[in-house]
Amino acid sequence: MSERTEKRTSGRPHDPEAAGAVKAAAVQLVRERGYAKVSIAAIAAQAGVARQTVYNRWPSKADLMLEAVFEEAWTLTAEPKPEDGSGAAAQLEAFLVQVFAHLTRNMDPVRALIAAAQEDAAFGAVFRDKFVAPRERVVTALLERAQARGELGAERDAAMLSAFVHGAFWYRMLNGRRLDAALARAIVAEVFAAG
Amino acid sequence: MSERTEKRTSGRPHDPEAAGAVKAAAVQLVRERGYAKVSIAAIAAQAGVARQTVYNRWPSKADLMLEAVFEEAWTLTAEPKPEDGSGAAAQLEAFLVQVFAHLTRNMDPVRALIAAAQEDAAFGAVFRDKFVAPRERVVTALLERAQARGELGAERDAAMLSAFVHGAFWYRMLNGRRLDAALARAIVAEVFAAG
Repeated sequence: MSERTEKRTSGRPHDPEAAGAVKAAAVQLVRERGYAKVSIAAIAAQAGVARQTVYNRWPSKADLMLEAVFEEAWTLTAEPKPEDGSGAAAQLEAFLVQVFAHLTRNMDPVRALIAAAQEDAAFGAVFRDKFVAPRERVVTALLERAQARGELGAERDAAMLSAFVHGAFWYRMLNGRRLDAALARAIVAEVFAAG
Repeated sequence: MSERTEKRTSGRPHDPEAAGAVKAAAVQLVRERGYAKVSIAAIAAQAGVARQTVYNRWPSKADLMLEAVFEEAWTLTAEPKPEDGSGAAAQLEAFLVQVFAHLTRNMDPVRALIAAAQEDAAFGAVFRDKFVAPRERVVTALLERAQARGELGAERDAAMLSAFVHGAFWYRMLNGRRLDAALARAIVAEVFAAG
């Protein structure tokens, strides 16, 4: 855990109800107005809390959005079960369809968070640790299980393939393309094309 | 060509010497100070031209940087020759090594331009047309030639593989990782792993 994350989570005890209201307000306002047009002041007003209450918990708008958007992401996106009887290709496709649905619903804040991570190194580190790395590990682990079961060649590089998968949809998303079920199918087909 | 690009390139005739000085000043200042800290005014002062001279040609700092950084990119990054005797894997690796060297030299402005493309849809379209799409086509064409020569399976999806390649290094770069020759080798090895 980075120093910055510790600082944030080890602060004074917060009111969970207020925190929930702030996160809900942030997600709602960003969906309505777009990330760039929403201020911490507007979020606090919508949530019915003092602005300082927001700053006590989140050092910036980007940190608040990260928690609000990606908490929802992990609630809605079920991690593939190691052994659910379906093959690795079907598991990966189902996982990507869920991820894409969530990203599509939050396209504007997600693209804004990735932009913020380029301009603020400290936020970039939090974004990477809390959001990027866990998802990358989920896909790498899924591909390693596929290798163990012989569904993917043992000579393939599971970590690089995971970067191909995530990279492909980041690249499409950051260039304004749609993330849909057809893209999920095409990515999975190409990963498993050569076995 | 988008309407915005046309507007920019069909404006009044400009002084090529002044334009060159402005682009050189932009690249130098951004390397010294970082993208966020460089203003159009500072670039104009460094180049010894009026601020309006800059605005006559480039609607924003992002547009100016795009032209300055990526003009250099295309000068320095040779496109793979269709038939130079080496295999497609070696060609792709050599191309990526050149691209990575240029991106590494311009990491801060490139990450800032990708961020700007997320926040300004019109700039995003110019960025995509001028920078992203041509490079993607270079790699797709290289992979299609590899398929025609039997160096890559005919059943592989060259366009998706090109997205895997670009996606992998965008993803690494945007998450603050180094782009080096080892990454180029690992990407190429995985693309051609299964033939």
